[in-house]
Amino acid sequence: MTGVSEQEAVSLDQLKQIMSEFAKERDWEQFHSPRNLLLALVGEVGELSEIFQWKGEVPKGLPDWKEEEKVHVGEELSDVLLYLVRLSDMCGVDLGKAALRKVELNAIKYPKKVSEKDPSSTTKDHANSEPASSS
Amino acid sequence: MTGVSEQEAVSLDQLKQIMSEFAKERDWEQFHSPRNLLLALVGEVGELSEIFQWKGEVPKGLPDWKEEEKVHVGEELSDVLLYLVRLSDMCGVDLGKAALRKVELNAIKYPKKVSEKDPSSTTKDHANSEPASSS
Amino acid sequence: MTGVSEQEAVSLDQLKQIMSEFAKERDWEQFHSPRNLLLALVGEVGELSEIFQWKGEVPKGLPDWKEEEKVHVGEELSDVLLYLVRLSDMCGVDLGKAALRKVELNAIKYPKKVSEKDPSSTTKDHANSEPASSS
Amino acid sequence: MTGVSEQEAVSLDQLKQIMSEFAKERDWEQFHSPRNLLLALVGEVGELSEIFQWKGEVPKGLPDWKEEEKVHVGEELSDVLLYLVRLSDMCGVDLGKAALRKVELNAIKYPKKVSEKDPSSTTKDHANSEPASSS
Repeated sequence: MTGVSEQEAVSLDQLKQIMSEFAKERDWEQFHSPRNLLLALVGEVGELSEIFQWKGEVPKGLPDWKEEEKVHVGEELSDVLLYLVRLSDMCGVDLGKAALRKVELNAIKYPKKVSEKDPSSTTKDHANSEPASSS
Repeated sequence: MTGVSEQEAVSLDQLKQIMSEFAKERDWEQFHSPRNLLLALVGEVGELSEIFQWKGEVPKGLPDWKEEEKVHVGEELSDVLLYLVRLSDMCGVDLGKAALRKVELNAIKYPKKVSEKDPSSTTKDHANSEPASSS
Repeated sequence: MTGVSEQEAVSLDQLKQIMSEFAKERDWEQFHSPRNLLLALVGEVGELSEIFQWKGEVPKGLPDWKEEEKVHVGEELSDVLLYLVRLSDMCGVDLGKAALRKVELNAIKYPKKVSEKDPSSTTKDHANSEPASSS
Repeated sequence: MTGVSEQEAVSLDQLKQIMSEFAKERDWEQFHSPRNLLLALVGEVGELSEIFQWKGEVPKGLPDWKEEEKVHVGEELSDVLLYLVRLSDMCGVDLGKAALRKVELNAIKYPKKVSEKDPSSTTKDHANSEPASSS
């Protein structure tokens, strides 16, 4: 349906195009205002959170999860991505370019570690310096 | 820094690779557990929402926004994307493939409109049938 | 069940007590760690957002909503509140006192309007000064 | 300012009244549409999440947190509550009554444990039966 071989790398432009056609074919463009899409995104982040909510700390790779739970996580991550791509399009933002630019800004803001520090100071640096807390 | 020409389409695999190196170079891998990244994602969605919170309904393309506000939106959309990419990686999910698969599932669930309906029924269908409400 | 007459004002302490007993009676205390409850709260905020996501701007009082939709909104608002109360308790925060203190801080930060300004400057002041954007 | 002794239990009606006056005195009623307040609430939930994002699992009572961090958590919990109270008011929902009613519905949906089960089945029951996942 998507006209995209799954072997190739999936680009943000491709997803934007797919979402645009998807909305057009279903007459959904009328609903896709920025704030509607933003609230839909929040809804999907909520569904993603529900998967993790009673689990306590979860190790990388979700090693002990059932296959159906992993598929579910993939679907909810995808829903967040698809609304994010559509929201960016409706805001006139080139999401791929914006993301590369943001990584470059982050690289300036948080220079690479060159020397070893003691772990506790690393922890503190991180808490103060991650993009999420300070942007 | 990213080794990526901005002329080319940006792929999710590229961003995954960039985020992985970024974390490694800063000794941040220790912080990037799934639930830590999920909460960081929620934090960024919050920052994105704050831009839109007092604006009432906003038209597509953000026509009356100041340039700095549009740049800000692009940065917050990017922060959400970057944590989403990193979270997917830490969950062992191939986000690009998962997104294409989800679009195909959605295409089955919500077939294309073939004939005209009256608008009120369209509205109702939409409310009941959008991925966000029912997945 | 709650031992509370609905005629009286409902206090945050009452809800805290109810939630505490509710968890104890079901052996759920083991699940109610701060981050589990925080993710559950995010899940409920997502469900609340889903009700509003395709509606465009909505007037105060939800005048054109069906009765069942209004009931649904009340339920989702309640779910957010109940997890917020429980999360506060598990963080050792007296939510009622903290809220009164926060209102007092806000009152200092955003003094009452004493004179009239032109509406556009009001808009700008608000955007810069609301608690949500700047706290 | 609030005219409320901090010794007494803080009720949701009190907070509703305080928020209503606060908005009126600052000419903010024009901004307090349901969806504006909902996005403001999402913003505050994001700020709350940012406090917890790099911490890994956190024990009840936040025993090792610095006093200023605990105060910060109390402020963000309060911001979420205050917008929730205001949003409920703007939706015409009596939040205290709605919450008591929701607790009663939950008590029917999740009856008290009467007999002992093995812990793994409890875990599973919980995952399937908590209000957040299924409402």
